[in-house]
Amino acid sequence: MSVIDEVIKANESYIQNFNLENLPMPPSRKLAVVACMDARVTVEELLGLKTGDAHIIRNAGGIVTEDALRSLIISHHLLGTQEFLLIHHTDCGMLTFKDEELQSKLQKLMDTATVALAHFHAFSDLEDDLRQQIQKVKSHPWIPKHIPVRGFIFDVKTGKLSEVST
Amino acid sequence: MSVIDEVIKANESYIQNFNLENLPMPPSRKLAVVACMDARVTVEELLGLKTGDAHIIRNAGGIVTEDALRSLIISHHLLGTQEFLLIHHTDCGMLTFKDEELQSKLQKLMDTATVALAHFHAFSDLEDDLRQQIQKVKSHPWIPKHIPVRGFIFDVKTGKLSEVST
Repeated sequence: MSVIDEVIKANESYIQNFNLENLPMPPSRKLAVVACMDARVTVEELLGLKTGDAHIIRNAGGIVTEDALRSLIISHHLLGTQEFLLIHHTDCGMLTFKDEELQSKLQKLMDTATVALAHFHAFSDLEDDLRQQIQKVKSHPWIPKHIPVRGFIFDVKTGKLSEVST
Repeated sequence: MSVIDEVIKANESYIQNFNLENLPMPPSRKLAVVACMDARVTVEELLGLKTGDAHIIRNAGGIVTEDALRSLIISHHLLGTQEFLLIHHTDCGMLTFKDEELQSKLQKLMDTATVALAHFHAFSDLEDDLRQQIQKVKSHPWIPKHIPVRGFIFDVKTGKLSEVST
């Protein structure tokens, strides 16, 4: 049995007690979170969020890519979120490599004539990178200046969030 | 008290019972999920996933953007995931607008001289768009052909996942 078959089976249990059919589309707590895809960072749990509360945007590193900006703009302008929270975390995989090394490795491994992905967004300093991501949100012309954008480091050894000063 | 202050307060409760300090970086069930940021789609819960099990990638629509591909490539090549699961859902915000309309609206509202974001990836057919996203993963030169890529629609009224044939 594949893992996908297992989780689809698990969904049969989820629907037994499902009672969220009346939740509206806009997040009730008007919050959007950008966090890493890391398996140890269960965003809703570590923030005490319930289904329906917040938009959760996640990618490798919790980077404010053009895609994350796209999601935040939709989140605010179409669905009314009013605060943005960014989460990086200790022991992040993005601290373990360099873009050029991975590109070169994949080009050989996958036997491609060219580099098939321009940026991996690896970084070497957690807090410094988080500050850069906050700045990317704050400086986008389609993100209103009044929206609070705050960044936190999640410690995977303790579960604790610590705010990064900007 | 802002919502961010509230969820940071909630994190103090989370760390009281925290016992996940020994989880390794690679996801234990070798699964990566791409899903929508929608507040009603709590990915881990609806799939029965525990903290540490899987990479969770989320954005507006659950679109396989270059950023999602970046995350999937890192997930597989650096952290060993072997199956990819894509989730779209009913009543998605991406069904409610057209890219050009939103761009035009934001350009006026935010008083910008140019269109500050090239693509919003709105769509008009849920299943058809999901098939396109699956195809984008399968056709990327740095995603190995042996990785299963399966797509499901999550019904926000029932909690049920239904597979989309490709």
